[in-house]
Amino acid sequence: MQIPEEYGGLGLSNTMYARLGEITSLDGAIAVTLAAHQAIGLKGILIAGNDQQKAKYLPKLASGEHIAAFCLTEPGSGSDAASIKSRATLSEDGKHYILNGSKIWISNGGLAEIFTVFARTEVVDKDGTTKDKITAFIVERAFGGVTHGKPEDKLGIRGSNTCELHFENTKIPIENVIGEVGGGFKVAMNILNSGRFSMGSASAGMIKKLIEMSAEYACTRKQFNKKLSDFELIQEKFALMAQKAYVMESMAYLTAGMMDRPGFPDCSVEAAMVKVFSSEGAWQCVSEALQILGGLGYMKDYPYERYLRDSRILLIFEGTNEILRMYIALTGMQHAGKILTGKIKELKKGSLSVAFEMIGKRLGSSLGRKINLGLTGKDGVVHPSLEESTKKLEENTYYFGSTVESLLYRFGKTVVDEQLALKRVADILINLYAMTAVISRASRSISIGLRNHDHEVLLANLFCSEAYHKNCFMLAQLGKYSPANQDDSIKKIAKHVLESRAYTCSHPLDRTF
Amino acid sequence: MQIPEEYGGLGLSNTMYARLGEITSLDGAIAVTLAAHQAIGLKGILIAGNDQQKAKYLPKLASGEHIAAFCLTEPGSGSDAASIKSRATLSEDGKHYILNGSKIWISNGGLAEIFTVFARTEVVDKDGTTKDKITAFIVERAFGGVTHGKPEDKLGIRGSNTCELHFENTKIPIENVIGEVGGGFKVAMNILNSGRFSMGSASAGMIKKLIEMSAEYACTRKQFNKKLSDFELIQEKFALMAQKAYVMESMAYLTAGMMDRPGFPDCSVEAAMVKVFSSEGAWQCVSEALQILGGLGYMKDYPYERYLRDSRILLIFEGTNEILRMYIALTGMQHAGKILTGKIKELKKGSLSVAFEMIGKRLGSSLGRKINLGLTGKDGVVHPSLEESTKKLEENTYYFGSTVESLLYRFGKTVVDEQLALKRVADILINLYAMTAVISRASRSISIGLRNHDHEVLLANLFCSEAYHKNCFMLAQLGKYSPANQDDSIKKIAKHVLESRAYTCSHPLDRTF
Repeated sequence: MQIPEEYGGLGLSNTMYARLGEITSLDGAIAVTLAAHQAIGLKGILIAGNDQQKAKYLPKLASGEHIAAFCLTEPGSGSDAASIKSRATLSEDGKHYILNGSKIWISNGGLAEIFTVFARTEVVDKDGTTKDKITAFIVERAFGGVTHGKPEDKLGIRGSNTCELHFENTKIPIENVIGEVGGGFKVAMNILNSGRFSMGSASAGMIKKLIEMSAEYACTRKQFNKKLSDFELIQEKFALMAQKAYVMESMAYLTAGMMDRPGFPDCSVEAAMVKVFSSEGAWQCVSEALQILGGLGYMKDYPYERYLRDSRILLIFEGTNEILRMYIALTGMQHAGKILTGKIKELKKGSLSVAFEMIGKRLGSSLGRKINLGLTGKDGVVHPSLEESTKKLEENTYYFGSTVESLLYRFGKTVVDEQLALKRVADILINLYAMTAVISRASRSISIGLRNHDHEVLLANLFCSEAYHKNCFMLAQLGKYSPANQDDSIKKIAKHVLESRAYTCSHPLDRTF
Repeated sequence: MQIPEEYGGLGLSNTMYARLGEITSLDGAIAVTLAAHQAIGLKGILIAGNDQQKAKYLPKLASGEHIAAFCLTEPGSGSDAASIKSRATLSEDGKHYILNGSKIWISNGGLAEIFTVFARTEVVDKDGTTKDKITAFIVERAFGGVTHGKPEDKLGIRGSNTCELHFENTKIPIENVIGEVGGGFKVAMNILNSGRFSMGSASAGMIKKLIEMSAEYACTRKQFNKKLSDFELIQEKFALMAQKAYVMESMAYLTAGMMDRPGFPDCSVEAAMVKVFSSEGAWQCVSEALQILGGLGYMKDYPYERYLRDSRILLIFEGTNEILRMYIALTGMQHAGKILTGKIKELKKGSLSVAFEMIGKRLGSSLGRKINLGLTGKDGVVHPSLEESTKKLEENTYYFGSTVESLLYRFGKTVVDEQLALKRVADILINLYAMTAVISRASRSISIGLRNHDHEVLLANLFCSEAYHKNCFMLAQLGKYSPANQDDSIKKIAKHVLESRAYTCSHPLDRTF
């Protein structure tokens, strides 16, 4: 879909790719098969390959004659991608790399002809020392020495092929290095970062389908002489699904739009935020849709249980949500840290809204120093029906800025280990980005008179209200002496449990020591 | 397990039954097969059968020679059990009932010899009018006309047998009526109410197993040169599992203990609270345990994905959590309503703590009128290390009482339709009951010097702190003009979605009306 037309592809923008993702996501296994091919499998060639590599490989990958796979993960290396052990050694004549190693959980691993493989290589640094660095290679199955295991037996996305891959003395011509020798880790991260945003529209597409199917049921099934749709507890589930779909769409297309602007900066944090929000929203919505059907939802005669099984992988792959939350928080912090280093005195005086700068900058707003950032009111850009939500966003952003400052003062560099605090930082950032996305979208929909824009305003305001209250609570918890912060207890409890590798309470029926 | 020894059973108390449930729950399909037999299938005979019925049926059910099943649900009658259509007609000679009808999702339906079947019967009322009422019957497969469908293909508990049952002119001797003719609905509810409490210890048993398995992994798997167990985001998951297991155990054994006291009142609300809390906690914990394993957790080589599939049914069966929340809230309200009717003037003056009465009564405490209910301090019954938690419980209980009063004044009888408010009432009640349970248990553990009681205090205080903050927020939302209450928006959004049976927002890429 995104391969340029000159190589036989559709040349789609990120926005158009996101749009198609709404449809392909209706079958999780197909979505993963397609994504493994084009979102990660061939992406390295697309974004970091040279013209020769593009000309040689992209046409058959575009036509589907060849299927691609992305080979990073190893048994000892999951989230910690930099720790891979596969090794590529330069041949004596300097014309080939000899690849040895094993990869696991490779989507399309059993079907692919072309592999983007990451392996350690010896690299001589500028100062003459030899170091082990990761390099990315284009490997053809035809190079020989490539074998794969049985398809993995998985909870979901069972129609997609996932397997181990083994490379034994596979000879890779040196011209098949993607980018720089030793620059493979960055290539891997860029590939992964470039694809994550699309989980937003994909999940929204699935939820829209779930709404249609479960609404049909809720509007016909009767219990207690009423349609299910007449019960508020059922209505609440539809409001939840509509809200989540709206937020996901808004975040995904805002991000895709930024990525499509020529020369626009790296959007990997935004993409990670879309991924975390969408994967968790999808998981929650599928479970609620299944619940609307009651016992029927649990049966394989209906599609809900399959959507449930399929969607569970979203929290794990393309970066676990745990890793991505740390990435979101620390990248934001890093940015804030730089400001701190440079403007330490200024910061000590005031309350520079670090977080708002990060988001605000991207939206072209000026750096705010006041709670009222000028988004509303006479000269504001936001429609009055979203004024309350915008004030909530401004207030949250303002206090978030000062809270992040305090955290950095309190912990300094060791903030990287304060994962419970960082998790809240990430969650607040995700909410702020999502609030920004829905307010922008709803404001635009009103101003250009889109159909059902009143409904959009309801959804945007509902989300902003809920996110605002969650943010307020998390901001309070980030305070140094917050009574709502139980992190010390959590760590003590976990330490005790993990040292014993068991639940250690006496049984309630125990009577003596 | 609970059949008296005189009939060949083990004669276990509810407490002992709960204790065994911790073990049998380690295989979801076995747990359901056992529960379908003894917790519902034969329970009608046990709690409402006469001596002849017990003598005739219980011995073979105790030995396992016969398997039992509980037959209530029909295609048109799930949560609304009173709407069943199966019919039993008295034969002309008055010696038999002729049963016709179909049941669905009958656990053990294909294996059972003995069925507890609910069907409509004509009953002549005291005033001579004929009415349709539900009657419970003991039906033997040997009576004839009993057939069943194929085993259902389910998401989980796949080792358990679930199928349709059909009764075609099945002749049931009149002596096989359980309890009164026309009294079957109450029998059905009593059976279901009597078994739900055990989901607490069963889920706790499963979580304890999950802790052991995933701790083993977290303490050995290394990423980023650290053990997974060294990361706070992983520690948080273990603290969550330990906390949930602790609360479930505490609630389940408190409830079972009350049920085991001779002549003790109906504990169906408490049992429903245990069921809702435990089913949702189990679902959440299994997903977190799976997440600790990352990609491995998604594979069928490991048991996590099966626990996930199995545990999803807990939110649906034995009464959906939606129905049970309404039951919890309305039963509490009904109690409060009675006080209101009798003491309307008194109530208008003060702030009678309605909810505390409900819980407090059961615990033998006196009706409180003050925030400080006397549980702590010099003459208090609670250990000083739990004093803060107890104050939180007292404060929540106090404001809950006045909030329920306001709700009843505001809505009167139509409060039954205010499901979004009732859901919060139920959630607060569940938290209050759970706080009561953990404070009591930890206090006892300290006073009798149980092993690891400090750890129990940490768990109890952690839960009480989290529950307190949630309660405060929900209590605020129950206020008439709460800015945090978005119920009107939720209902408007749902109405719009359900009328269209679709997600109705314009697409973010749409440009014109």
